[in-house]
Amino acid sequence: MPAYTAPLRDMRFTLFELLRADEKLRDLPGHNEIDAALIDQTLEAAGRFAAERIAGLNAAGDAEGCSLTAEGVRTPRGFKAAYDDYAQAGWPSLACSAEHGGQGLPKILRTAVDEILAAANTGWAMGFAVVNGVYTILSRHAAPELQAIYLPKLVSGEWLASMCLTEPHCGTDLGLLRTRAEPESDGSYRINGSKIFITGGDQDWTPNIVHLVLARLPGAPSGNKGISLFLVPKYLSHGESLANARNGVSATGVEHKMGLRASATCAMSFENAKGWLVGEPNRGLSAMFLLMNDARLGVGVQSVGIAERGYQAAVAYARDRLQMRAGLPARRPDLPADPIILHADVRRMLLTQKAHIEGGRMLNFWLALCIDQEHAHPDPAMREQAGELLALLTPIAKAFLSDNSFMDTNLALQVHGGHGYLTDYGVEQLVRDVRVAQIYEGTNGIQARDLISRKILNDGGARLHRLLGLARNFAGAQEATEMQLFTEPLLRLCERIEAVTARMARAASHDPEEAGAAGYDYLHALGHLVFAYLFARTAAAALPKQDGPDAFYASKLATARFYFTRILPEADGRLAMAEAGLASLSAIDEARLFA
Amino acid sequence: MPAYTAPLRDMRFTLFELLRADEKLRDLPGHNEIDAALIDQTLEAAGRFAAERIAGLNAAGDAEGCSLTAEGVRTPRGFKAAYDDYAQAGWPSLACSAEHGGQGLPKILRTAVDEILAAANTGWAMGFAVVNGVYTILSRHAAPELQAIYLPKLVSGEWLASMCLTEPHCGTDLGLLRTRAEPESDGSYRINGSKIFITGGDQDWTPNIVHLVLARLPGAPSGNKGISLFLVPKYLSHGESLANARNGVSATGVEHKMGLRASATCAMSFENAKGWLVGEPNRGLSAMFLLMNDARLGVGVQSVGIAERGYQAAVAYARDRLQMRAGLPARRPDLPADPIILHADVRRMLLTQKAHIEGGRMLNFWLALCIDQEHAHPDPAMREQAGELLALLTPIAKAFLSDNSFMDTNLALQVHGGHGYLTDYGVEQLVRDVRVAQIYEGTNGIQARDLISRKILNDGGARLHRLLGLARNFAGAQEATEMQLFTEPLLRLCERIEAVTARMARAASHDPEEAGAAGYDYLHALGHLVFAYLFARTAAAALPKQDGPDAFYASKLATARFYFTRILPEADGRLAMAEAGLASLSAIDEARLFA
Repeated sequence: MPAYTAPLRDMRFTLFELLRADEKLRDLPGHNEIDAALIDQTLEAAGRFAAERIAGLNAAGDAEGCSLTAEGVRTPRGFKAAYDDYAQAGWPSLACSAEHGGQGLPKILRTAVDEILAAANTGWAMGFAVVNGVYTILSRHAAPELQAIYLPKLVSGEWLASMCLTEPHCGTDLGLLRTRAEPESDGSYRINGSKIFITGGDQDWTPNIVHLVLARLPGAPSGNKGISLFLVPKYLSHGESLANARNGVSATGVEHKMGLRASATCAMSFENAKGWLVGEPNRGLSAMFLLMNDARLGVGVQSVGIAERGYQAAVAYARDRLQMRAGLPARRPDLPADPIILHADVRRMLLTQKAHIEGGRMLNFWLALCIDQEHAHPDPAMREQAGELLALLTPIAKAFLSDNSFMDTNLALQVHGGHGYLTDYGVEQLVRDVRVAQIYEGTNGIQARDLISRKILNDGGARLHRLLGLARNFAGAQEATEMQLFTEPLLRLCERIEAVTARMARAASHDPEEAGAAGYDYLHALGHLVFAYLFARTAAAALPKQDGPDAFYASKLATARFYFTRILPEADGRLAMAEAGLASLSAIDEARLFA
Repeated sequence: MPAYTAPLRDMRFTLFELLRADEKLRDLPGHNEIDAALIDQTLEAAGRFAAERIAGLNAAGDAEGCSLTAEGVRTPRGFKAAYDDYAQAGWPSLACSAEHGGQGLPKILRTAVDEILAAANTGWAMGFAVVNGVYTILSRHAAPELQAIYLPKLVSGEWLASMCLTEPHCGTDLGLLRTRAEPESDGSYRINGSKIFITGGDQDWTPNIVHLVLARLPGAPSGNKGISLFLVPKYLSHGESLANARNGVSATGVEHKMGLRASATCAMSFENAKGWLVGEPNRGLSAMFLLMNDARLGVGVQSVGIAERGYQAAVAYARDRLQMRAGLPARRPDLPADPIILHADVRRMLLTQKAHIEGGRMLNFWLALCIDQEHAHPDPAMREQAGELLALLTPIAKAFLSDNSFMDTNLALQVHGGHGYLTDYGVEQLVRDVRVAQIYEGTNGIQARDLISRKILNDGGARLHRLLGLARNFAGAQEATEMQLFTEPLLRLCERIEAVTARMARAASHDPEEAGAAGYDYLHALGHLVFAYLFARTAAAALPKQDGPDAFYASKLATARFYFTRILPEADGRLAMAEAGLASLSAIDEARLFA
């Protein structure tokens, strides 16, 4: 696999020309000293770190994997040293608040950095994937004395964290969980139970680990409303010597997985572990959802990063590999055959990846900016609007981008032909690594359910109409005739989605399962709406510069056109599938259907 | 992973009720004594062998893989013993001609058996995947003295075979190959060169291996027209003692692959290996295409088998796993949550797999029947028609079914949630195993090129109109109003495909690369046409029996309806993409597009 190069040019375009993030951050107290130069410097440093320190460990980490020894989980060779460098350089504190020792930089910059790290070595980057979410929960919900102990350690990167939700019998349905927490006289709790699928549940990078654990208090109501959140450290002491302070929590196994093998997925046992309540009793799930939403956006970011890595490898291979003539007369008669990048079908595969990646990057950065605005904008109406868009688009970013990225890594593999199927080229690892993105942090089916039930039907479509309003306002404001190629299909799709949503809402008012039947295809249609809106904006930004000396803009425009002519036609099919509804799935009962 | 059960009920439906294969075989000399009872018995025996002897070795074979030792390639534990039983039971001879010691049974029966074996253990079944193709080539093109030595050994299963085409610098573009063959005074040839990606290039199952090797004679024309075909055995003696007869051919490496790890993919070295010409000098590629076409159909069959295995696992898991309520009031208040099979979105995933599998099985069996008719029908017009359909539909069966199957195994994994990502459940292996089906025997992009250029544009669309005629005649003959749900979309699709094909042909007459630009999406649209035709026939066969005591027919009908309402809408999008043509891929040159 060729070296990874952070896509700084496209990141800059997205940040500055498309989203005007530098201007918008200036409206936010705490971020108003951030300028393009600071953002540039940070991204360049992240790109160097990624290329020099972690990209080269990716394949070896997959081959070696993690193992459970008597001393706990062992991660692949070189991973701890790379993390030490990462922490030493101050990366963990990037977006943490200054009051806890952080640099106070915006989420949008953290997001760009996270994409770069995931592209270079996802298995390694998983080691701290939940830290920002854990930091957010603790900084909002934990008691001051807990904050004083734990937040500085997380901000400095000295300690890492895990989130402990899933149990063997429940993942999606956390209401079924059984881990118990019993109050002790000193104000702490005794935690007992088993958890599975815990990323970084144990590791050899940091001397202590901060576990956030969902458990039930005695007499708690059953279901989702009886779940509380606890902080359970691996070691109870936070002084220099941790030797005698081991808490009753340990990894009992490391799963063998299809991919992400460099990231330890642990089965965990809590045996009379000491923990402290975070937030209100029985309100643990809503606190945890802060972290879940952050993690879901993180999956979208990771998905784009992995797809970018595969895309770079595929472009390099397609330039290099000679096979057949693309047309006659031969474009490269000096060579025994044409580079396969000259073949139209290979360009179709590369452009699909490029469009998905650039569309996904626009969506991710936009949502990160929404987070910054929701937290810090002085105007409450702007905060509210940012929050509503974020709520609507989070399940789309998680599911649409991970589905796309799985397709993209597979296209990168396909461009490599038989060589792509070999371990040596590294592309098949990307396919295996990104596959879990469609599953974890709530399967993509669950994202669809969240989108329709909570984000659209629950508010009578208000959030959706806000999004449609953005797209229509943008389209209405375009005057260049070249923009009609983009605005006309965008407006048609807005109309179609409005109509389908209204019919779906009526059907769901009679039978809520109609939402479940339509959900997955509907989510994809909405994903296309978002991409169509963002690529139309791309076209508007690139059109005036398409004939300039920088070919970047001509390439952006070609990609936007490709998206509209060769990917967007999927949307109509998705809407037709969504409209087929429950009748298509329930003609006869499941016992006879799947006999 | 649950035990595999051969889908005999659906196979019987496809063979007897849909294709009326038993009646049609009766028209063919040599097959006119075959009846439903013989077919049933054979499939039951294959199902037992698959379930009892090989299904249980599948996961262990993946974990152990193949390795190269000083004695040659070592295959996973238990694989040779299973092959010995397979050969002993006479399976290799099933479809071989009686004159070489075979049972002379039809291709359609061999195809059903092959699906069953691939479902149970693809890695193992790859061990003899090319034998039938090698048998066919040798029985048609080899000199009688070669036939006398090699055919009986292949028919009995005592020896196995390999096809040696690919070289490091050429896979798709065999015209570039460099392996040389120099004539010896005794009428044999001395072969020198390197090959890669050779399935079963070496193994520890049989004492000898028959390699079919493409190489160039001295002074041969460059490109495709200078390639000849040679038979190169691993051992030159065919008597009892092979000890001193080792030929100059050996495996020099075993590839590390994403999947199919139980099947050795070898790098091969030919050093002054002794070989014999098969067929005419410089005509090797056309002889090899006999085998390639057989192998391509084999990929479609294998794809359906692997998808079936995943589907069975997914249905079992979905019945068992309890998570959330599908609706209120709860359908299973006796349980803490509903089995996930009650959730609409899970049924969507299961029905997609079911429709793809049953559609794929119909296509595979239909094509196998075409092979039987092309070879043996007394009416030359019938032979010609069967041959033309076969030529048209072979690239579709290879590419559409392998693409579908990759989606299906991923849906099976998705139904399993996080557990699907673990090695333990066995579904992720199916995803990895089937991934190569989109690549080998000609990538799916190459299939699309073959479909448009050779099979459609080359004969002015005559083959395509034959297919459209079948669909239109069928639709026109339906009288039941319930059939309109199927016949109307089928006729609409016929019309749309006709129009798109005509425009594409015009565009390609100006620039042949237009065919390459449209090919992949066009192939998928044609795949949907074939499935729509076959599912409409399914509906016609099932409708009269839908209310009978056997729920099988209601399930077939529900699956056909699901296909038409929830999968077929993809076809319009594919045609729109195909029509976007070369302009969508060539707006600017590739150097600036992928800068």
